[in-house]
Amino acid sequence: MKGGTKKIELYDTTLRDGTQGEHINLSVQDKLLIAGRLDEFGMDCIEGGWPSSNPKDEEFFKRAMDLELRHARLAAFGSTARYSDRIETDPNLLGLVGCGAPVITIFGKTWQAHSKTGLGISDEENRALIKNSVAFLRNAGREVFFDAEHFFDGWKDNREFALDMLKAAEEGGASRLVLCDTNGGSLPHEITAIIEDVRQHTDIAIGIHCHNDGDLAVANSIAAVMAGAIHVQGTVNGIGERCGNANIISIIANLVLKLPETGASVRDLTQLTSLSNFVFEILNLPPDSKAPYVGRSAFAHKGGIHVSAVMKESSLYEHIDPALVGNRQRVLVSELAGQSNIRYKAQELGISIPEGGEQIRKIVNHVKDLEHRGYQFDGAEASFELILQKELGTFTPYFEVIESKVYVESGIGGRNVDQAVLKVRVGEEIEHIAAEGDGPVNALDKALRKALIRFYPEIKGIKLVDYKVRVLEEKRGTSARVRVLIETGNGRTTWGTVGVSTNIIEASLRALEDSMNYHLFTLKATEPKPAAEENH
Amino acid sequence: MKGGTKKIELYDTTLRDGTQGEHINLSVQDKLLIAGRLDEFGMDCIEGGWPSSNPKDEEFFKRAMDLELRHARLAAFGSTARYSDRIETDPNLLGLVGCGAPVITIFGKTWQAHSKTGLGISDEENRALIKNSVAFLRNAGREVFFDAEHFFDGWKDNREFALDMLKAAEEGGASRLVLCDTNGGSLPHEITAIIEDVRQHTDIAIGIHCHNDGDLAVANSIAAVMAGAIHVQGTVNGIGERCGNANIISIIANLVLKLPETGASVRDLTQLTSLSNFVFEILNLPPDSKAPYVGRSAFAHKGGIHVSAVMKESSLYEHIDPALVGNRQRVLVSELAGQSNIRYKAQELGISIPEGGEQIRKIVNHVKDLEHRGYQFDGAEASFELILQKELGTFTPYFEVIESKVYVESGIGGRNVDQAVLKVRVGEEIEHIAAEGDGPVNALDKALRKALIRFYPEIKGIKLVDYKVRVLEEKRGTSARVRVLIETGNGRTTWGTVGVSTNIIEASLRALEDSMNYHLFTLKATEPKPAAEENH
Repeated sequence: MKGGTKKIELYDTTLRDGTQGEHINLSVQDKLLIAGRLDEFGMDCIEGGWPSSNPKDEEFFKRAMDLELRHARLAAFGSTARYSDRIETDPNLLGLVGCGAPVITIFGKTWQAHSKTGLGISDEENRALIKNSVAFLRNAGREVFFDAEHFFDGWKDNREFALDMLKAAEEGGASRLVLCDTNGGSLPHEITAIIEDVRQHTDIAIGIHCHNDGDLAVANSIAAVMAGAIHVQGTVNGIGERCGNANIISIIANLVLKLPETGASVRDLTQLTSLSNFVFEILNLPPDSKAPYVGRSAFAHKGGIHVSAVMKESSLYEHIDPALVGNRQRVLVSELAGQSNIRYKAQELGISIPEGGEQIRKIVNHVKDLEHRGYQFDGAEASFELILQKELGTFTPYFEVIESKVYVESGIGGRNVDQAVLKVRVGEEIEHIAAEGDGPVNALDKALRKALIRFYPEIKGIKLVDYKVRVLEEKRGTSARVRVLIETGNGRTTWGTVGVSTNIIEASLRALEDSMNYHLFTLKATEPKPAAEENH
Repeated sequence: MKGGTKKIELYDTTLRDGTQGEHINLSVQDKLLIAGRLDEFGMDCIEGGWPSSNPKDEEFFKRAMDLELRHARLAAFGSTARYSDRIETDPNLLGLVGCGAPVITIFGKTWQAHSKTGLGISDEENRALIKNSVAFLRNAGREVFFDAEHFFDGWKDNREFALDMLKAAEEGGASRLVLCDTNGGSLPHEITAIIEDVRQHTDIAIGIHCHNDGDLAVANSIAAVMAGAIHVQGTVNGIGERCGNANIISIIANLVLKLPETGASVRDLTQLTSLSNFVFEILNLPPDSKAPYVGRSAFAHKGGIHVSAVMKESSLYEHIDPALVGNRQRVLVSELAGQSNIRYKAQELGISIPEGGEQIRKIVNHVKDLEHRGYQFDGAEASFELILQKELGTFTPYFEVIESKVYVESGIGGRNVDQAVLKVRVGEEIEHIAAEGDGPVNALDKALRKALIRFYPEIKGIKLVDYKVRVLEEKRGTSARVRVLIETGNGRTTWGTVGVSTNIIEASLRALEDSMNYHLFTLKATEPKPAAEENH
């Protein structure tokens, strides 16, 4: 380990390089929210965007000035000037100075082929662009980080040229030389060797910026730190162009927990999982359940024998304590599950199932059958709990939908109608009710609430917070089964329920029914049971 | 690089360790299909399962004997015996011998804490279990690979114990000592150092088996090969428990393309992308678009300026030629898109858009508007082409749905009805038609075909092959917009279309309409236009 106990600088580029990824789109408001969370978490630098490249990023920097960051410094990104003899009037540089960010990161060409073929300029011109651009920003009172674009490929192609461009940035006054593996194809041992070479030629602090095209971005970043880099760039969840940037979530966990000698630290590592989930949520992307450290499956155990061992002594089966990163151990109730998995899950829910009886066998068979039909309870623990409670005789449904009709009509008299008609039994009474909605599922949701509110006014306080559809057996085309997962909240907590059917409307109705039943069940668990009970 | 030009042995455990992953479920038939593809691709060993642990794996080995593998050897997995003095009657070992696989991989404890706490046995007993189990299988005429479970953690905890257990396997006659990072938390430099130590103590060929809990499984596998391991285990797409196993797809590409001195090779590397997609398909999981080398986005470029440079000289922007792994370069039509992206995409589709006119501006605005509303054309190039052709005046829709009604009724007289009623205009004629289906979307699909078949009998030859639903704005609950992607095929090729609406039925109808229009358009592109044209 070189670099002694120098503190590692964590530089987040989720808001800039991350947004180059496919399907990634952030509004200014989204970016501000994420910047706030990154600061709270303890990121040292937050690269917010490229102010002169688009109006969205310009607005971001204007509004970011009011963010009152507690810890992080804001960085703006841009390129070197276009012409070395017109530095003072270069619109890109002026935009960078004008945006007000205290740190400016500019990239320049350090692969000769790029400056020759891409820009069509001489080595001297490229050198002058780098040196003069950095110097201009330094003179404007900014701290300047130099992103050496395509550095590793450039070094392999023409080492002298690559090193000389770093020297130009140094002469201009850059305080970080960030070596970028822009095309993402380098191997860790190359990163190590090249950084060791660079460190022979400069005393400026070295940074690293990796992409994941070889599935090695995290390893390359760590190799760089171990070779003496003290500044690490990455994006939350590894979002970014092509295969993504280095995942700063994994880098942080590895450095803090496994290489404490690097001095890497954040304000509160237990926020790591929620930071990752928060960014997925803002991006409106499904979280990566397999994500190291923070994924939902990262500490999930499957299979009977193994699970009992895990329960006995976690540290023998988990590389770290999941609580350190705000994650938790899970035991999967799956088709591989034996009784022990279901018992463990029940225990988590605070439910005890009598030992060795008929009940546990019945529950296991029932769950297996449902899973065979496409159910899964990973995101639908409320549905799972209702099954258990029903089997144990402690829950009976609060209502029954005995008939449902949904009409979706469009183009008739220029009007679109989405209507649901339900016949719902509550106790002795039958409510026959209709509602219109925004789409058929929304109409169903409204009709069900309308039918129940007279009997259960407490249904009013709940709100659907998420609705997901997954097509099972995708090959079967439009007649495939679908699984609907619904997340419902009451302002304090949320719960997930599931429905499966070849009919998306029916699958949604099942999940909605479970959601409302669960809400009533948890509210009424201690109250006398409603009349409905007798009818089942 | 140690190990000289020794050939690397690629050992695939997708069918065994891979199936421990969450949401992973393979039938015997699925496993046989995958085994066939792995062999065709050029994997050296295929671990098919644990025969004595479940009837599915037992059946797999029975049926696998008929596979006639051309290149790969089949391996069966299991544990060491339970009692060292009852080796000959151990049901697990007998099952392994009985399954007929030429290679048997057994795992044993090499972390002292596991044999002490987990099994509750003495070091001597553990040693005897390993040695005697291996010897028993060797005597039965099998080649035996020893999976040293938790080896790296075990070495760190008690090096002598760990090395001695390897020695026991060697004494028993194992031909590979596979060092397993079972909990997946090791760092590359630890792997390197520990393998170098092991190589001081044995001449048996070393293997490596990594998990991805630190986001380093591929790097760890490569570090192992560079330290002298000649056998590498992994799973296709990195499926597996928790964060998954080492992704053998990435490992292979890195070794073959970037470390040719390791001697790693496969029959046909250009099948890498299709192998990855095939396994995702059989698993019924959406492919990982960001997957290194093989993902749909792995060579996708976004953003105007960058794209023109990529078109000029790909090798400056791509770490490898995507054709080497059977992937291809893509240019994304996204909200970041300028004219050059749309032109490039059009060119890919063989469509030329006049330079500098009003048309390109109109197309860009139209696409931007659609994307703003949630459309995306990444998986829906047919819809994109229809937009272009319409704007260029070369396509007019073959029909128009002027009214649609969908009824979903359940619980009425015990019968469920999913019915669609459509009013469709074709030329001067209006067809008013109804159909029942399996779910509302299937009913719509059937009704639309029924309405069109009299006019366009060629609609008969097409079949829906995939149907996907993505909820946009998930926070808006049941009134959120959904995007429906449909993949249709005619037996020779497939095409993707898209529809977006707050109403899932309507979104599906839009995608179905595009699909049928596209089919008719490509068939009829050279024929005279139908009467419908005049009406639009």
